[in-house]
Amino acid sequence: MKAVRIYGQDDIRVEDVAIQDPRADQVQIKVKNCGICGSDLHAYLEGWGLPTQPHPLTGKTVPITLGHEFSGTVVKVGTDVTDIKVGDDIAVEPLLACGKCDNCRAGNYNFCDNVVAEDGAGNFLGFSEDGGMAEYANIDDVFAHKLPEGMSYELGALCEPVSVAYEGIKKCGLREGQTVAVMGAGPIGLNTALLARIAGANRVYISDVSEVRLDKARELGFTDVLNPLKDDVNAVIRRDYPTGVDITFECAGVQATFDTALKITRRTGKLQIVALFGHPTTVNFTDDVIMQGIDIITTLCYNNSFDTVLGIMNNHRADFEPLVTKKVSLDDAVEQGIKALSSDKSQVKIMVSPEA
Amino acid sequence: MKAVRIYGQDDIRVEDVAIQDPRADQVQIKVKNCGICGSDLHAYLEGWGLPTQPHPLTGKTVPITLGHEFSGTVVKVGTDVTDIKVGDDIAVEPLLACGKCDNCRAGNYNFCDNVVAEDGAGNFLGFSEDGGMAEYANIDDVFAHKLPEGMSYELGALCEPVSVAYEGIKKCGLREGQTVAVMGAGPIGLNTALLARIAGANRVYISDVSEVRLDKARELGFTDVLNPLKDDVNAVIRRDYPTGVDITFECAGVQATFDTALKITRRTGKLQIVALFGHPTTVNFTDDVIMQGIDIITTLCYNNSFDTVLGIMNNHRADFEPLVTKKVSLDDAVEQGIKALSSDKSQVKIMVSPEA
Repeated sequence: MKAVRIYGQDDIRVEDVAIQDPRADQVQIKVKNCGICGSDLHAYLEGWGLPTQPHPLTGKTVPITLGHEFSGTVVKVGTDVTDIKVGDDIAVEPLLACGKCDNCRAGNYNFCDNVVAEDGAGNFLGFSEDGGMAEYANIDDVFAHKLPEGMSYELGALCEPVSVAYEGIKKCGLREGQTVAVMGAGPIGLNTALLARIAGANRVYISDVSEVRLDKARELGFTDVLNPLKDDVNAVIRRDYPTGVDITFECAGVQATFDTALKITRRTGKLQIVALFGHPTTVNFTDDVIMQGIDIITTLCYNNSFDTVLGIMNNHRADFEPLVTKKVSLDDAVEQGIKALSSDKSQVKIMVSPEA
Repeated sequence: MKAVRIYGQDDIRVEDVAIQDPRADQVQIKVKNCGICGSDLHAYLEGWGLPTQPHPLTGKTVPITLGHEFSGTVVKVGTDVTDIKVGDDIAVEPLLACGKCDNCRAGNYNFCDNVVAEDGAGNFLGFSEDGGMAEYANIDDVFAHKLPEGMSYELGALCEPVSVAYEGIKKCGLREGQTVAVMGAGPIGLNTALLARIAGANRVYISDVSEVRLDKARELGFTDVLNPLKDDVNAVIRRDYPTGVDITFECAGVQATFDTALKITRRTGKLQIVALFGHPTTVNFTDDVIMQGIDIITTLCYNNSFDTVLGIMNNHRADFEPLVTKKVSLDDAVEQGIKALSSDKSQVKIMVSPEA
């Protein structure tokens, strides 16, 4: 079958590879869509997250089939699989987890103690196990989530980044009626803003330095759209809410947005970090955090949320559909996909489709 | 009456001042003991936290009577006070709060929105309102907490720093059976370790670079006492608990202890910051926080805890009594008190007593 294989920094090859039958506890899917994530960009541009030595759980090293945001239809089921059958449409939860350590058994399988790779390899399909940028993929049955009736494969593939955003919403405990600011209008920021609106937030500010991204936010119906290059974000928010917003979602991951996030959040409010940070951050704990009583909360991936998120997305399809901005073939995954995503801010989610 | 008045950096004077009658909602106490806090040191050595312009709630500027860890016996009651009578012994909760803003009404009066001073003045008696290093003090009735029967004035005065530690225990949700590490064996570190033990922690590590302070920890019955100048703190803890401790309390507030705290805490564990930090901290959010799922939690002072803490201390008097290491008179408050505390690591809590 055709697969998009990453060998290391700047080295992705579209190749013909064999795929084995699924293990007893796996299903095999024919991939329909696979989103390109910022982390795929980092893997390609910097070699980030790739296993250079055998991964502790999978034993795999590069080359690896990329892709961790994907959906498909089941074509084979392992002998032990009872709840999924051939023909089912599924969204893939692409985590790697042992299922046996304290964290796994506590439900925190996104922090599995047995997948911590010394070389920093990502604990995902698409990093330390073959992923979804291919014609077929084998998926552990516990990570195969049936799509709601009639939901598209595009939305199914989008469930992964929406789950990243949902984990932040879940962890900070956002409630209806609260006020929210979102730093960053990339895919995670937009998903977070959408989920906050769905969760009943009274007001959702969204801030980005890219007008193209802010236009997308406007297209999604957001009106409190701020550009820190033009707007004094803190002043605008404090004019409406003198004590600040209840929760700020940091979906950009740079010092400037982190500093603004602390500034605009009310005393005893929450700063929910959803983005990864490329560089260490300077934090003035005493003045900016402790004295303000602001809780800084972080999340990594998600756990036990895929079915919930599929339900949300299915009930709000029109909200999420505009996030898919392009579809490319496996052959075009690098030039038209990964490279386009890194240069074209109007792209939110580019889908790689074996059928495109 | 005699009072220890701070005028600014390096300028404390023991003076004779008048004291007014208590307001209708206040009681007047004859002060019995007033602990010296690290923040009093900072006020004296650096002018930290002193009101240089009228404080938004009290209207006060320096000079101010120092002292925010104090106890005494009631000698006068205001006309509206119904639950406290002359002769009652009380511990003073030394906060300033409006009682009317959203945070006050939500119970978070330690984050009162109306006491935020532009000059960074502390929202305490002893900073922006006259405190307890004097013969008498006027206290709002809601902040006057009756001592349990037979509990000493020393323990009553110690309730304030114990409440600081208790707030951390409360906020991080420490449960019996968890494993704990405490960074720093100063007054707050020792109080935190004692409270963790009382709360039923299975194991309490305590770390400090001062052997004198560690000796105090040993005197209090702690055996897992570590000195990072000699011990590889992470290696020792990981030998006992390969995945790390459940909760680390940061009671030192410097980069080195913060870094160690993140290292020794298990994935999905908690880092509870109790100390203030003198300098900005560098945080590698992605690798050290997000990827580890460690919650960084901060606390400032306390709220709604004094009666609970008095009850705990009364039930465990012998645990807390060794923390009071010296008693000095008002006249000796600077030379024998504040200066001794800054130079002599064997001092945990020095009490200023008008009767000494």
